[in-house]
Amino acid sequence: MDRPNIQKINMLSSDFKKQYLRTLANCDNSLFRHPQRTMTERLQSLLPLAAQYSEADCYGQGELVNEFEQQVAAMLGHEAALFLPSGTMAQTMALRIWAEKKHCNQVAFHPTSHLQLHEQNAYQVLHGLDSCLVGKLNEVINRADLDTIHIPLAALLLELPMREIGGQLPTWKELEAQQKWAKSQGIALHLDGARLWSCSEYYQKTLAEIGSLFDSVYVSFYKDLDGIAGAMLTGSAEFIDEARIWTRRLGGNLITLFPDILAAKQGLTDNIPLMPDFVAKAATIAKLFNQHFPTHTIPLCPPCNLFHLVIEQSAKELMPKVMKWSEQYNMALLPLPRTQTDTSCRFEISIGQNALKVSNHDWQKAIASFAHDIILD
Amino acid sequence: MDRPNIQKINMLSSDFKKQYLRTLANCDNSLFRHPQRTMTERLQSLLPLAAQYSEADCYGQGELVNEFEQQVAAMLGHEAALFLPSGTMAQTMALRIWAEKKHCNQVAFHPTSHLQLHEQNAYQVLHGLDSCLVGKLNEVINRADLDTIHIPLAALLLELPMREIGGQLPTWKELEAQQKWAKSQGIALHLDGARLWSCSEYYQKTLAEIGSLFDSVYVSFYKDLDGIAGAMLTGSAEFIDEARIWTRRLGGNLITLFPDILAAKQGLTDNIPLMPDFVAKAATIAKLFNQHFPTHTIPLCPPCNLFHLVIEQSAKELMPKVMKWSEQYNMALLPLPRTQTDTSCRFEISIGQNALKVSNHDWQKAIASFAHDIILD
Repeated sequence: MDRPNIQKINMLSSDFKKQYLRTLANCDNSLFRHPQRTMTERLQSLLPLAAQYSEADCYGQGELVNEFEQQVAAMLGHEAALFLPSGTMAQTMALRIWAEKKHCNQVAFHPTSHLQLHEQNAYQVLHGLDSCLVGKLNEVINRADLDTIHIPLAALLLELPMREIGGQLPTWKELEAQQKWAKSQGIALHLDGARLWSCSEYYQKTLAEIGSLFDSVYVSFYKDLDGIAGAMLTGSAEFIDEARIWTRRLGGNLITLFPDILAAKQGLTDNIPLMPDFVAKAATIAKLFNQHFPTHTIPLCPPCNLFHLVIEQSAKELMPKVMKWSEQYNMALLPLPRTQTDTSCRFEISIGQNALKVSNHDWQKAIASFAHDIILD
Repeated sequence: MDRPNIQKINMLSSDFKKQYLRTLANCDNSLFRHPQRTMTERLQSLLPLAAQYSEADCYGQGELVNEFEQQVAAMLGHEAALFLPSGTMAQTMALRIWAEKKHCNQVAFHPTSHLQLHEQNAYQVLHGLDSCLVGKLNEVINRADLDTIHIPLAALLLELPMREIGGQLPTWKELEAQQKWAKSQGIALHLDGARLWSCSEYYQKTLAEIGSLFDSVYVSFYKDLDGIAGAMLTGSAEFIDEARIWTRRLGGNLITLFPDILAAKQGLTDNIPLMPDFVAKAATIAKLFNQHFPTHTIPLCPPCNLFHLVIEQSAKELMPKVMKWSEQYNMALLPLPRTQTDTSCRFEISIGQNALKVSNHDWQKAIASFAHDIILD
């Protein structure tokens, strides 16, 4: 079950990848997330907010960080929050805290969870937790899946949206049923909300309403929010007090994290109001791919600002053509493949400010031309 | 043995402490480390270096970080290095790696080690290591102390200089004897070099010569080097490959750490050439305290840029007087006490750029006046 849907095949040389990324960076139009900024531009963008605070955070204390923590806790319907360097730190400590509280070292998550695929088994090697993988590989976890769990659990981790399967979301009814199940079993419910910010639209619920279903929530600031790095863990005041101790242990209680905090706060302010636009644009663009491409997007109708796209060509065959097309059309349409097989490439498209800058009509033209030149060629 | 020399007594209210720190920040002259900078000033100071690199580090890769790692590895006489968010992360993972390599979970360090006092027992709770405390409480570890160890060890951690006992250093002969002992026993020797930068003077050895005695070295960038945050772990290429995996597990492999890296690199460039001056100034200033104060500095003749100072008054009695004096003389002479008893305060003085700005004659006048007004009053 290790790395179940992540093909380790990689047909692209490191030189090609560098060249491809440079080509994308030089395009004036891009489908992915936010405008690329140099370090200089990033640092300069923090100056106005920096000027509003008399001092940086110091070992997790100070107005800048504590006020931001309160802001995000309230946004997510929780009592308290803790700013952390990374999601890996946030989530493993959350599960460890629940395991100790429930006197049980077993935790459940989907086989494509970040903990299972991308953290070198930290939950196991570092925290002594055992995992119970739940749900079908390419589908969201549903209430019926939980009935297959026959071991005691400290916590169940759900991810909204589920990144590795294209940003799929369970229905609100499903979520409520799963929350009810966890509650009835005395199991803590933890949310991997790395990309939660765009989920309000689909559920027609506030982030606080979504967050309130969970005992603890992790959110990220550098993905859809365009921060530098950093995460927030939210929960009860008691839970966050515990988390502060674990942060110290994990080496995450730094003398200051002020550049990350400033960028996170700015990113939140700038991008949260645009989430409905990102989600609408993602739906439109997925539709265009589905009209012009022989394969369909995953999911077919993206509920949030993220979807995947499969092209049935090997990376070695496909990507040089894509690079040439990008140069010719001055447009970054596909990132490097997220996963590959011998005969296909899977791409992850996250919609942000960049996609909004190009009209739907121009996206239609670009995607049609791309399909004509490269897919149907 | 928990927190052996750190008195938990704290007679100062949090309001007083804030007010005191504000007073110090407003003084034009200061004895401590480097000029205080606002977040704005810090960010602006990074701009020239940021402009020299085309892109930020990404998950530990890229010219900016890898070139800096190579630079510091070479400085410390090692093959490879890894930039990390914190020293806690660096040191616990170093000991964990040695423990796994040596198939032994016992590691030795001084009772005042950072691992013993300030990390919420991470080495134990998170890494399953057992500690063997070695050496006398207020003295450096010597070769004879090692003969009292009668259990197998994976690693011995030495700290240079030893922060909690005023920056004391063992002699070079002692160091060599301890290294020989560790080697003969097949025990890895790890260096807590958080403040190593100022040790070259005393030993009349390069940092590389000092570093070469050890199998792994941790150094810090935000203390004497005036960086933002961050640490480096150095060792063999094989050791650092292992460390990269542990960094992932600990949640320290961030999408970018560029502000910390830029500030660390700049801090190294700016402050390493000044280390001999810091050390000489520390010796001079300690001498002045010893001339004018009834107590003597710890150590009496500081071998590096750090020393401690004890004043035989309670914090409650002493510190309001110190605050008033600081306002009157426009001079920050004492930080908040590092430790307290009912009848005494212990202060840590780290010498950096600030102390150099005031002539020895003026320091003499200030310290004499302070002693007259407050100590001998």
